[in-house]
Amino acid sequence: MQNVKEYIAQHKDRFINELIELLKIPSVSADPAYNQDVLNTADAVKDSLEKAGCDNVEICETPGYPIVYGEKIIDPNLPTVLVYGHYDVQPADPIELWDSPAFEPVIKKTDIHPDGAIFARGACDDKGQMYMHVKALEYMTSTGNLPCNVKFMIEGEEEVGSESLAWFVPRNKEKLANDVILISDTGMIANDIPSITTGLRGLSYVEVEVTGPNRDLHSGLYGGAVANPINILTNMIASLHDENNHITIPGFYDKVEELSREERDEMAKAPFSLQEYKDALDIDDVHGEAGYTTNERNSIRPTLDVNGIWGGYTGEGAKTVIASKAYAKISMRLVPGQDWEEITELFKKHFESIAPKSVKVVVTPHHGGQGYVTPIDNIGYQAASKAYQETFGVTPIPQRSGGSIPIVALFEQELKSKTILMGFGLNSDAIHSPNEHFGVWNYLKGIETIPYFYQYFTELSK
Amino acid sequence: MQNVKEYIAQHKDRFINELIELLKIPSVSADPAYNQDVLNTADAVKDSLEKAGCDNVEICETPGYPIVYGEKIIDPNLPTVLVYGHYDVQPADPIELWDSPAFEPVIKKTDIHPDGAIFARGACDDKGQMYMHVKALEYMTSTGNLPCNVKFMIEGEEEVGSESLAWFVPRNKEKLANDVILISDTGMIANDIPSITTGLRGLSYVEVEVTGPNRDLHSGLYGGAVANPINILTNMIASLHDENNHITIPGFYDKVEELSREERDEMAKAPFSLQEYKDALDIDDVHGEAGYTTNERNSIRPTLDVNGIWGGYTGEGAKTVIASKAYAKISMRLVPGQDWEEITELFKKHFESIAPKSVKVVVTPHHGGQGYVTPIDNIGYQAASKAYQETFGVTPIPQRSGGSIPIVALFEQELKSKTILMGFGLNSDAIHSPNEHFGVWNYLKGIETIPYFYQYFTELSK
Repeated sequence: MQNVKEYIAQHKDRFINELIELLKIPSVSADPAYNQDVLNTADAVKDSLEKAGCDNVEICETPGYPIVYGEKIIDPNLPTVLVYGHYDVQPADPIELWDSPAFEPVIKKTDIHPDGAIFARGACDDKGQMYMHVKALEYMTSTGNLPCNVKFMIEGEEEVGSESLAWFVPRNKEKLANDVILISDTGMIANDIPSITTGLRGLSYVEVEVTGPNRDLHSGLYGGAVANPINILTNMIASLHDENNHITIPGFYDKVEELSREERDEMAKAPFSLQEYKDALDIDDVHGEAGYTTNERNSIRPTLDVNGIWGGYTGEGAKTVIASKAYAKISMRLVPGQDWEEITELFKKHFESIAPKSVKVVVTPHHGGQGYVTPIDNIGYQAASKAYQETFGVTPIPQRSGGSIPIVALFEQELKSKTILMGFGLNSDAIHSPNEHFGVWNYLKGIETIPYFYQYFTELSK
Repeated sequence: MQNVKEYIAQHKDRFINELIELLKIPSVSADPAYNQDVLNTADAVKDSLEKAGCDNVEICETPGYPIVYGEKIIDPNLPTVLVYGHYDVQPADPIELWDSPAFEPVIKKTDIHPDGAIFARGACDDKGQMYMHVKALEYMTSTGNLPCNVKFMIEGEEEVGSESLAWFVPRNKEKLANDVILISDTGMIANDIPSITTGLRGLSYVEVEVTGPNRDLHSGLYGGAVANPINILTNMIASLHDENNHITIPGFYDKVEELSREERDEMAKAPFSLQEYKDALDIDDVHGEAGYTTNERNSIRPTLDVNGIWGGYTGEGAKTVIASKAYAKISMRLVPGQDWEEITELFKKHFESIAPKSVKVVVTPHHGGQGYVTPIDNIGYQAASKAYQETFGVTPIPQRSGGSIPIVALFEQELKSKTILMGFGLNSDAIHSPNEHFGVWNYLKGIETIPYFYQYFTELSK
């Protein structure tokens, strides 16, 4: 399969330009204003799959945004790889912090990406990483290097909870039948330190509303005598962590799987510089749960973060008002063992219970998903490991990620197959942030590596 | 002076329509977008003063919005009343909570205002109450009932801290020389329980900014390991009150004047129903400093309220992000004895000191002012009291207000004269809130009462 390098060298400009076209469509699933753009992106993905050699490509309707499906079945007796990805992206705001418009991709060199990186919302998460699979398929089909069957399932609601996918999968088990699921929606440690994600955190996302008086009040006439919903909300949120940054919700940790000392020692071997970490974020100190390292805090431990808060007067100048309402969006990252619906219920019950009589509280669950762990002894993981060795020249490190792909747990439950998370992005790619980008080298390296996964997985399946 | 009733009866429709025209101009001083409207309002006030019989009316330029000045000097040997008011208004937002547009005044009957109330931003605070004085002057000049000299000083920055007035007054002491300052920018207990405000709270208004990482981060990849500025801000704000709702800023209470048991007992005589208070605000319980009644909490005790808070993703749907920055607008109401600049410094020092090393904190003072107390034994208060007796038929109750008119303390310091706060609005008029209104009865009653103040003040000055 040596010719994969040549094929990429021949077509790399086209590979990059095709991705740039895809990135120009603002497929923000969280905001109804982009509804048509999301739908247009699904069409673009459909076309790209057909051009790459997929058969039976279709736009599958769902209660929400459609799922793009395509397949290439060369022999029912050969194993089948199901590729999952998503064509929707996070909102771009705060847009004022982007150096170039989020949906006008540009290629710029950076210290970490001397060959240049594509800057645009979705460049890495997940259009860029999803499109690597499309181009890898194009290579395999057009050069006769496809060793097994392949199916693609690309959704448009990953950034808002994959509800329609959860509806679609159980209804299409036969169509989606596979031997392994392959996803590139995670990262690796560094370009010279490839890693494979073996664990994901679950997620529970809620919105809270605190109501005090029935109207905004003059803070002079009422200040001090009436509960201020913003002050109350800050009290309630602050009380969710204790002085050791443990989460105080009763029962929250009951089902958390504690890692053994050995497992934690193994994790600690991954190269990590706290100073570089702090410098990259321009912070003087890290902050987290007592008794755990930074890498443990953001991977094997559950968290509670406020993702947004608002209330009262936030415009120019000053307004002496006591707001009637205050709001917050709060998400909890969960670890294997914690059930997201149970945790959501625990949060709701606790948050309502700590509300003083002077306010009314409403907790609205947004969405969530379970955590997941991939065993490194299965042939999917081994095929991926060998593929990285082939193209990176080193054995990838198994790594727990702090991120969540809630749907992975559902795949295992409904489709009875394991998921392999082959990520080629870097933490510094600023996904979900202004100036998200994806290294050109990483993009092409992914396209080069993926065909080897197919080859080794087919061999190991014999 | 019996003919004041007849004069008002004759001209009331015009009085109301003139006020409605003034209320149509959105003179929001906090928002630069309304710059021209604020200036147009100053011109409208100038015209109204000239029509009412003022001489030497002028638009006095300042570093900010202009101050409208006018006078009617009938005899240098007679006492001089300086009328202060403001033509700027609070922002109208949240506009979606207004039943009718904030700057399209309408008259509607309410339970408390059976003769109808004018609904518009500024109806009561302060265009309506300021304009009572203009119409009272018109009556006195056009019917030969002006018993002394009068000066008007109407500013356009009261809602944003009166900075230009603080610049103007020391530079115009001679022009502003007076024997008493008369202001209608406060309220009374009820239409059948007139009261005169004898105390005002001071104010310190600050904005805080908490910065964590140098960019928004993915809450999965970094959650739990990096300080979330919103969580940190909620902790810091929550810590500003203890479990008894005492403010925890060191030195905050050091100079607070404690009222004697007698004074508190006197205050407690003012009619007040906690149930009605809670019903009017639709709250199940009040909330405030332990050891004080509701009326004490919002008048003789200092407070700390968050007037606005924002950070992270506040749009539709969900965004799993750790924001780089979080903000809050915080105001403290101060009582006599507390110096607002000293308190602002104490807040800044304390707030910066409680910030963990994992974030950076910036505290920006907005504006402030001192509290004030009017002695009830001075002739200004007595003249006001007799005026209310004349038109309401009962003796008004002296009352401390929780609100702030920072400039009052400066008047005493610079102009060496006492301020009398003759308010005709009600707490239920929703100033600073959606659906602000001012009773037509109250508006006309104010016009009727003010001339008696001039009469009695002149007599008592002999």
